[in-house]
Amino acid sequence: MRYDIRLNSDERDDAAVLSRADFAELDRADPLAGWRDRFALPDGVVYLDGNSLGALPKATAATIDDLVRRQWGEDLITSWTRHGWVDLPRRVGAKIARLVGAGAGEVLVADSISVNLVKLVAAALQLRPGRTVVLSERTNFPTDLYVVQGLCDLLGDRLELRLVEREGLAAALDERTAVLLLSHVDYRSGEVHDMAGLTAAAHAAGALALWDLAHSAGAMPLALARDGVDLAVGCGYKYLSGGPGAPAFLFVAERWQEAARQPLSGWFGHRDPFAFQPLYHPAAGIGRFQAGTPPVLSLKALEVGVDLLCEVDPAALQAKSRQLGDRFIRLVEERCARLGLVLASPREPARRGAQVAFRHAEGYAVMQALIARGVIGDFRAPDLIRFGFAPLYVRFVDLWDAVEILRQVLGERTWDRPEFKQRASVT
Amino acid sequence: MRYDIRLNSDERDDAAVLSRADFAELDRADPLAGWRDRFALPDGVVYLDGNSLGALPKATAATIDDLVRRQWGEDLITSWTRHGWVDLPRRVGAKIARLVGAGAGEVLVADSISVNLVKLVAAALQLRPGRTVVLSERTNFPTDLYVVQGLCDLLGDRLELRLVEREGLAAALDERTAVLLLSHVDYRSGEVHDMAGLTAAAHAAGALALWDLAHSAGAMPLALARDGVDLAVGCGYKYLSGGPGAPAFLFVAERWQEAARQPLSGWFGHRDPFAFQPLYHPAAGIGRFQAGTPPVLSLKALEVGVDLLCEVDPAALQAKSRQLGDRFIRLVEERCARLGLVLASPREPARRGAQVAFRHAEGYAVMQALIARGVIGDFRAPDLIRFGFAPLYVRFVDLWDAVEILRQVLGERTWDRPEFKQRASVT
Repeated sequence: MRYDIRLNSDERDDAAVLSRADFAELDRADPLAGWRDRFALPDGVVYLDGNSLGALPKATAATIDDLVRRQWGEDLITSWTRHGWVDLPRRVGAKIARLVGAGAGEVLVADSISVNLVKLVAAALQLRPGRTVVLSERTNFPTDLYVVQGLCDLLGDRLELRLVEREGLAAALDERTAVLLLSHVDYRSGEVHDMAGLTAAAHAAGALALWDLAHSAGAMPLALARDGVDLAVGCGYKYLSGGPGAPAFLFVAERWQEAARQPLSGWFGHRDPFAFQPLYHPAAGIGRFQAGTPPVLSLKALEVGVDLLCEVDPAALQAKSRQLGDRFIRLVEERCARLGLVLASPREPARRGAQVAFRHAEGYAVMQALIARGVIGDFRAPDLIRFGFAPLYVRFVDLWDAVEILRQVLGERTWDRPEFKQRASVT
Repeated sequence: MRYDIRLNSDERDDAAVLSRADFAELDRADPLAGWRDRFALPDGVVYLDGNSLGALPKATAATIDDLVRRQWGEDLITSWTRHGWVDLPRRVGAKIARLVGAGAGEVLVADSISVNLVKLVAAALQLRPGRTVVLSERTNFPTDLYVVQGLCDLLGDRLELRLVEREGLAAALDERTAVLLLSHVDYRSGEVHDMAGLTAAAHAAGALALWDLAHSAGAMPLALARDGVDLAVGCGYKYLSGGPGAPAFLFVAERWQEAARQPLSGWFGHRDPFAFQPLYHPAAGIGRFQAGTPPVLSLKALEVGVDLLCEVDPAALQAKSRQLGDRFIRLVEERCARLGLVLASPREPARRGAQVAFRHAEGYAVMQALIARGVIGDFRAPDLIRFGFAPLYVRFVDLWDAVEILRQVLGERTWDRPEFKQRASVT
């Protein structure tokens, strides 16, 4: 047995796992424990925010230094071919494809999630002529909704954003729906949508399915091809550890690529960018979803994180992050009982991504007090404290330490100080 | 006298400048000569392609290493505020504003030129209701035209791209023109448009003026505010030395900012991104032109190059690059006479940017042969060999050495080998 997840179903073991030593023992038994050494993590910090900014792989600094000093500094412009810069968006995309269950030619690294959504929503509209509705969830991550609103302003009555509650999604699909746009894992609660089921429901209504994988890619198995997904976007700076503001990725199922057009038709999406023709002709395949010159520094940093994840079985990632989440919930509920916390994530591991959130009336101040004590999670309005369990570098003892400090912060009301209540623009 | 530009007007000095020693003497008299030491340039290479990929500032590697190891690796997510990551797009933008004669709140670093053009062309259409034409030049840099074509496909009869010859631009402005979209400096010939005059002509027709500064920002004085420019985009990886695929910048005159909307309305353009509201409300000022999460690694690299340029008087940059261009043309025409080269750039320095191009029937092979000998310029279809004179690090002796090798390559027909004729996808 490589994973001890009996605690989920066997309450008798509870009493056995209530000391730090027990959690240290879980680390010794963890088959992924060795991966933590591949990341540079500071001493004295419990980092539970890899779902917001992934930790630094140790290999990244040397890779970037070589890119800067040798490839850029010495080989200069010739590096576009000599060091394969021009191929990076497709090459790194092909690697990410392995993480998300897609074909090598179905994923491209480019731009940001926001910008890629503009491409894909516009492509979906064009692939579904006569349909005008983008259907999404009221609590979807806002940038996805903002981008559709921007397109609505541009396109007038040719596009409409319809937002419904989670439970009403399938019923709201109809003959006006061009595309169902959903985050696979909810950015606050961590709740997971049924990707295969909702994609099939979208198809049954004649619509396409566009998934935002920001909170799932790199943390769990994905099977975009098997699940029939049409379009997807995902994030480079969370579980893929690509660095702050790393470029995003996009997926277009091969069956749509030749028919699809996207409006951000910059020169790198041209079939022959260096012919400098005045008329745009889209590249074959996924390449037509490029826009401007690719960000080489950021792409190389992202490749290091992706290479690392490609060595690991996504099922093992998911198993560990579920185990971490389960134990975290139980530890919080046992050790922080009656201290004002309410679980805001699904209790069942199968319905949850690699993160857990609790509500607290003073959530913002509580998170600031935790960060001041070296426990880094994040706050999401209005009242959520959120903890991510990046399975390659979060240890079981980290859970113990985090909950111990959380218990102190809440029990001693450490959060009730002016410096923890002052809001910064980013947490 | 700091610059010896008498040769432009005083032919009697010609005979005096025909040896390498004379060019070395010009370097000794060059007040910008000391700046070369701030760049990492390989030995044995004459780099005349800084107009395509700017050389590496020596300070960049250490800055990026600190960003990666300390800011990302140790301070992790807290760096968004602790190290000001969240402010980088506006902070670096405010520095670039000094280089282009704009107000600090009028420039933002974001995305690529292609993506920024989508934002600004859409904004121009919205600011000029009832007008449907984007007027540009047939030989404009293609990505600018491609992006408008992409928007045309999306918007149908609400948008039309009209391309005319250079001489016909002013006459083609009419009551249907929403925006005049032009490259300030032609990417092939280096010919400079009259920014003030054409902007005034656009305004007289009721249109806006949108300038692409890719080949002028960082190489010459610009005065966007004084010249009445409405909108502009520019490149981070050419004269600004921001590194391969560095993010681009955009300019929106303050008078348009409150009224302007752009369709790529991602969360970083929201007035309160971390409130996670479902409805988009644009940020005040230039911030609304952000889309997704900013690329921190690339932004920090760009800042190093921009900081360097901010120390130099743009008029001095222009004076030196003109002097370099003048002497290069004269040297080529004298030493490579009757070897198949025809000047493709304006001879008058006031009509030329910081680059010079020659036509040659075998231009592609000639450039490959030059690169094999360590003289790096680039080729632009169909028959142009192009040389850029980034004034901070190109020396006068570089001109002598480049032309000497060019003379040998042409005289000995070195280019006439199969390996130089095989086309790569990027040169």
